[in-house]
Amino acid sequence: MELTPFLQRDGSLPLYVQVYEYIKLEIEQGRLPEGTRLPSIRRLSEHLSVSKNTIEAAYQQLVAEGYVGSKAKSGMHVLSQEELSTASQTAPPVEEEREPSTYAYDFQYGDLDLEHFPYRQWKQCLQKALETGGAEVLLYGNRQGDRGLREEIAKHVLQARGVSCLPEQVVICAGTQQAITFLCQLLELAGQPVAMEDPGYDGVRTVLLQQGCLLQPVAIEDDGISMAELSQSAAKAVYITPSHQFPCGAVLPIQKRMKLLQWAYNTNSFIVEDDYDSEFRYQGQPIPALKALDTGERVIYLGTFSKSFLPAARVSYVILPPILLTRYKKHFQNQSQSASPLIQRALYLFMKEGSFSRHVRRMRKLYQAKHRALLTAIEAYMGERVRVIGQRAGLHLLLEVAGGQSGELVRRAETAGVKVYEPKKYWADPDACPPGLVILGFGGLREEDITEGIRILAEAWACVK
Amino acid sequence: MELTPFLQRDGSLPLYVQVYEYIKLEIEQGRLPEGTRLPSIRRLSEHLSVSKNTIEAAYQQLVAEGYVGSKAKSGMHVLSQEELSTASQTAPPVEEEREPSTYAYDFQYGDLDLEHFPYRQWKQCLQKALETGGAEVLLYGNRQGDRGLREEIAKHVLQARGVSCLPEQVVICAGTQQAITFLCQLLELAGQPVAMEDPGYDGVRTVLLQQGCLLQPVAIEDDGISMAELSQSAAKAVYITPSHQFPCGAVLPIQKRMKLLQWAYNTNSFIVEDDYDSEFRYQGQPIPALKALDTGERVIYLGTFSKSFLPAARVSYVILPPILLTRYKKHFQNQSQSASPLIQRALYLFMKEGSFSRHVRRMRKLYQAKHRALLTAIEAYMGERVRVIGQRAGLHLLLEVAGGQSGELVRRAETAGVKVYEPKKYWADPDACPPGLVILGFGGLREEDITEGIRILAEAWACVK
Ligand SMILES: Cc1ncc(COP(=O)(O)O)c(C=O)c1O
Ligand SMILES: Cc1ncc(COP(=O)(O)O)c(C=O)c1O
Repeated sequence: MELTPFLQRDGSLPLYVQVYEYIKLEIEQGRLPEGTRLPSIRRLSEHLSVSKNTIEAAYQQLVAEGYVGSKAKSGMHVLSQEELSTASQTAPPVEEEREPSTYAYDFQYGDLDLEHFPYRQWKQCLQKALETGGAEVLLYGNRQGDRGLREEIAKHVLQARGVSCLPEQVVICAGTQQAITFLCQLLELAGQPVAMEDPGYDGVRTVLLQQGCLLQPVAIEDDGISMAELSQSAAKAVYITPSHQFPCGAVLPIQKRMKLLQWAYNTNSFIVEDDYDSEFRYQGQPIPALKALDTGERVIYLGTFSKSFLPAARVSYVILPPILLTRYKKHFQNQSQSASPLIQRALYLFMKEGSFSRHVRRMRKLYQAKHRALLTAIEAYMGERVRVIGQRAGLHLLLEVAGGQSGELVRRAETAGVKVYEPKKYWADPDACPPGLVILGFGGLREEDITEGIRILAEAWACVK
Repeated sequence: MELTPFLQRDGSLPLYVQVYEYIKLEIEQGRLPEGTRLPSIRRLSEHLSVSKNTIEAAYQQLVAEGYVGSKAKSGMHVLSQEELSTASQTAPPVEEEREPSTYAYDFQYGDLDLEHFPYRQWKQCLQKALETGGAEVLLYGNRQGDRGLREEIAKHVLQARGVSCLPEQVVICAGTQQAITFLCQLLELAGQPVAMEDPGYDGVRTVLLQQGCLLQPVAIEDDGISMAELSQSAAKAVYITPSHQFPCGAVLPIQKRMKLLQWAYNTNSFIVEDDYDSEFRYQGQPIPALKALDTGERVIYLGTFSKSFLPAARVSYVILPPILLTRYKKHFQNQSQSASPLIQRALYLFMKEGSFSRHVRRMRKLYQAKHRALLTAIEAYMGERVRVIGQRAGLHLLLEVAGGQSGELVRRAETAGVKVYEPKKYWADPDACPPGLVILGFGGLREEDITEGIRILAEAWACVK
């Protein structure tokens, strides 16, 4: 076999590319059929008067693209063209993530009602954003987040949560985990003790650990975080869900709120308040955010659109106390915005025209009905055999099945076609999760499916009344 | 003044909320006019037989919402309703970010051509994604990124960059900074020496520092990173832009590529290849990615849609060598996806129907013309007085003005209505940036504006031939 490309040595094209292109063409046009052995690197480099590096690079490129295979002893040989698409792929077959649920009744926490999603309004907002936004929604946009969106958020949290702030204090982030990453950097928490509720939101725990925080899990009492434990923790910051403890559902009472604030004032610590699902309360008055009570600029408020509107927006927000603004402005001017400016602008329009608050009001009613259906079904089909934990708000609750074991309960449910979940990942030490607990998210299920799902569960668990 | 709400002590509503609601209503309906002093906490708590905490909480809520002001000696008093919107806002007036450019000629790096942006196709893709995507594009979507998008990316990098990978190796991220944050965690780089080109992309430097890496700046030579310095650095990883060094424009020659790979193989280090603007080369053949030569699974490839398509998509991607997949699957199952699933799906559709590659081809021609206009104008108006650095590719170049000082050059340009930028932030030590350098991004300017902008610059800098 003769390989004699015409090499141009004027530097316009690297020699290895020329060699590579030549051999590639020979293979593609069938002049080097499958199985042909290529000359050794040394031989070809001498033949063409080029360096061995050149030939090696050309060969590696051919291998990388799957034209040529390399075997230990026999050297390089031309591969079949049919194999092309897979020949060079060295990745082991890796299990893909779970595909869309195949269960008739999937109590997945995080799912929302999509039947009543305002497709038309949202589509119009997206279109309008694209058509009228110009460079601001096509390029990088404002680093801190869309100015209009920040204004709407400031209005929203004042009206709905009693939180008073200026748009300058609002920083848009791409989801809660990104917000926590940002706060770890802003507060320089790496290497510092940081407290969080135990059990608590695993998504945040993961990030705190990855960011090098010294995690201080603090036990939950019936009325929320243990102040005694927190006080002993030396934490520089605490992550907390005061309005609806995740996952246990407690509401932090006002006395504890005052104590928590006092703790922060006395120790100069920060409180990160995650107000993730406060839109959905079904009993009593909405409880104002902890932030609304903060007179000492120690509470950092964290909100998300993932419960109230659309997880796929991937938009969350941080409200910084003014005391942190200088640091933010100084150190984060190189930080680009991660949430899509286009989505941000659409969300701004959606809020501005009132669609967002209409949507939340509508969803609150809807989820309230689902919630009622869930409690009614549990009461009817399971009765005394189970205890419901955290039933006053939100889109999930915990079920404690007397004498049950979470793993076993989940498996039996699966066999019966119902998907429920083990909550042990929410515990800092998963083994500390009490037996017999399962978590039920109900946002994505229809009322009748909730009822039927619970009926099947009760049977599967043999805890029919 | 008499404040005697009817308090329900059945626990349905916290007492402080009842007190707060009562006073709020009194104020709103004018029964407590502006200036009215509220009773002290002690007095009211005795009067109503509730705890002082209750009253304090109610008052703080009123203060937070701006109904009531608090003065050192005179206690709480009702504020004017007109002041409501600002009274409680304690944030200092903070300078907002620069508004959209007011310069007729803004050579901002990062701006793209928006006149030829495919609005119609992109809008259709967004619509279609929304209409047909279902739960996958409304909820959280696939953690690793939209499956279809990852397939399209795998095809794209094979075809355009000679990089062969499976969709399983592709991880979608929300921009390059987020990708680097992710890699710092995956490779556990906190506290480790990490090398990067100096000068180099400040956006990445910032993240490496924030993530606690020990930054090892490595000098750039005419043909890219200094291998001698890198070898001495003890770095566990190196961040590099081999196809178009940012900001100096060098292309890493094949010999250096081989040496760099050898360094990684010998030291068991990782190479993070940022291939940010490889779509836009105007001379010679596209240079295959460094990743295409990597036989030892040591190169992590990083791509972005911010140059080739749309910064506002906030979509970038990491291609992991198979060796890292197990670690990724194991430790990142709690990590939610930050890029919007809706945008990801739209991008998938855009690529799948061929619009993306058409767009890139079109833009390449367009930018080539702009690039030519820029070089021609510089040659014509500035001639020998300036040196052009890195003119073979991309959407920017550096200009070295003989005898000039960057700061002064920028100011003079501004006065003349042209915005150019100081590149010193790209140097690890900004003082090390040679004098007389400015960076010109030309992606967002029209050909004629480029020419005119350069003419004005030449005058402003008094370097007319
Ligand atoms: C406690 C808590 N906070 C926040 C979130 C929302 O996270 P994100 O904003 O990333 O969607 C969740 C979602 O599951 C949650 O349970
Ligand atoms: C070297 C380099 N990498 C990557 C990017 C793109 O960053 P992103 O993906 O966050 O838009 C840029 C943009 O300026 C850049 O200069």
